[in-house]
Amino acid sequence: MDKKANSIIYINGEIHSPENAKISVFDRGFLFGDSVYEVTRTYDRKVFLWDEHYDRLKKSSTKIGMHLPFSKVFLKNEIEKTMERLQNKEVFIRVIVTRGEGGFSLDPSTLTENNLIIMIKEMTRYPECWYRDGVHVIIANTHRTNKDSLDPAIKSGNYLNNVMAYMEAATQNVYDSVMLNSEGYVTEATTSNIWVVKGNEVITPPLKAGILEGITRKTVIKLAKENEIKIVQRNFLPAELINGDECFLTSSTKEIVPITKIDGHPVGDGGPGPTTKKIHELYRSFISQQ
Amino acid sequence: MDKKANSIIYINGEIHSPENAKISVFDRGFLFGDSVYEVTRTYDRKVFLWDEHYDRLKKSSTKIGMHLPFSKVFLKNEIEKTMERLQNKEVFIRVIVTRGEGGFSLDPSTLTENNLIIMIKEMTRYPECWYRDGVHVIIANTHRTNKDSLDPAIKSGNYLNNVMAYMEAATQNVYDSVMLNSEGYVTEATTSNIWVVKGNEVITPPLKAGILEGITRKTVIKLAKENEIKIVQRNFLPAELINGDECFLTSSTKEIVPITKIDGHPVGDGGPGPTTKKIHELYRSFISQQ
Repeated sequence: MDKKANSIIYINGEIHSPENAKISVFDRGFLFGDSVYEVTRTYDRKVFLWDEHYDRLKKSSTKIGMHLPFSKVFLKNEIEKTMERLQNKEVFIRVIVTRGEGGFSLDPSTLTENNLIIMIKEMTRYPECWYRDGVHVIIANTHRTNKDSLDPAIKSGNYLNNVMAYMEAATQNVYDSVMLNSEGYVTEATTSNIWVVKGNEVITPPLKAGILEGITRKTVIKLAKENEIKIVQRNFLPAELINGDECFLTSSTKEIVPITKIDGHPVGDGGPGPTTKKIHELYRSFISQQ
Repeated sequence: MDKKANSIIYINGEIHSPENAKISVFDRGFLFGDSVYEVTRTYDRKVFLWDEHYDRLKKSSTKIGMHLPFSKVFLKNEIEKTMERLQNKEVFIRVIVTRGEGGFSLDPSTLTENNLIIMIKEMTRYPECWYRDGVHVIIANTHRTNKDSLDPAIKSGNYLNNVMAYMEAATQNVYDSVMLNSEGYVTEATTSNIWVVKGNEVITPPLKAGILEGITRKTVIKLAKENEIKIVQRNFLPAELINGDECFLTSSTKEIVPITKIDGHPVGDGGPGPTTKKIHELYRSFISQQ
């Protein structure tokens, strides 16, 4: 399958076919991963939770000391303009802002113009079995980057840490890896936040564990509050995941994905649990109200 | 100053002007920093220590689970072919190999062809004062990435950690930052290895501290042994740097750069010391023998 198929790419105001969408090799995103990005999708052709994604893009930029010269409204407009080329289709959206083009020095002080790339791709349906049967994960040997080196709250072009953890999962033929921090606490999966249900509590790692502040994570917390589901944000060890009644992942593109096996051990009764299903229902209902 | 001036770029066998040197936005080097690279230079138009640089490129590839399909001889030949376009000039050389082009998933298993980029630029002379007076550095608040998240021994396209440490130095108008690991031990500067002279010992952090195994570092260790200079590889705290008799940095492009001030405190008598000068002389003599 051609991975570029059914895509359309915007670069600094111009729209390109995926084959012609190219960026300078002097771009700092290419040389150093010196870029920030967001991923969202459409529902009914509407860009989902753009305000929230924009706010996080802004936070990522601030954290890496990069001025973000694009407004919320401008970017939404450019996304929508690009989307029009893939008519009548639900799309996946990746917005990337790099620190621009420079020389070989790490010094960004002489850079002037950011590069803005919007990558739009037709949404493919995720496998039904992920939601019906749940997915299997492992605990990766690769630890998540520490907050004091490169805060995982920054959604940046430095993703090799996650790529390596993902490759551990791929080697074992499972869906994904769960990453621990250097203290041994659970942080997140490679592109999703993670949750464990135990008794009447739904537990997820706190921001201080070193995680991305997921937009779906925030939405689930809000929906749980409104529906008297008790959410607890605290550190926990992988044993708590394995001994949980239920586990699940949250992501802006994949919504709520039940985890039914961790390191070969079934979670709960080995199928998606009632709280996971309830939260997914609440989330689907929230989507339909946007 | 145009940062791209006096450059020539090779991409997968074709040679481009810097303005036309572009790579797909689907390249994993651009999306995730999923690439490895090496930087060297010429002396007398000869590629300096290519065997050593190639071996490290191979090590970096292996560590990120990427097959390197290019041989030492092939790459050297391609570098030399590209260099010819900048005749009679000493050049800076950056060789980048990415995991190729794919979709938006972290999964690299379906990728087939790596992208190979060789960036050549006319060498500019470094300021004479760096060597005559030494440079000033600070101890960065940004810690070096831990070995168990993304081993600093991997020379990869994930350099935002170093960019952020460099920016701390730039804010304080000094040459560079020294980065500590999460245990508080000195690791390296943002693009150089670091050394401290105390009494008759020349001390440098060990590989286990989480550092790049510098080619110049290796050469200095070899030259020191041959010349009865005592080298010690061990962990040390920043206080030992500040209280050292001399400090210096080593890098393939900049050779030996004395550090004369750390966090505002002069090192030793505040000027480049005799051991630093002696090591630079030995290094220059080594260069002339290549």
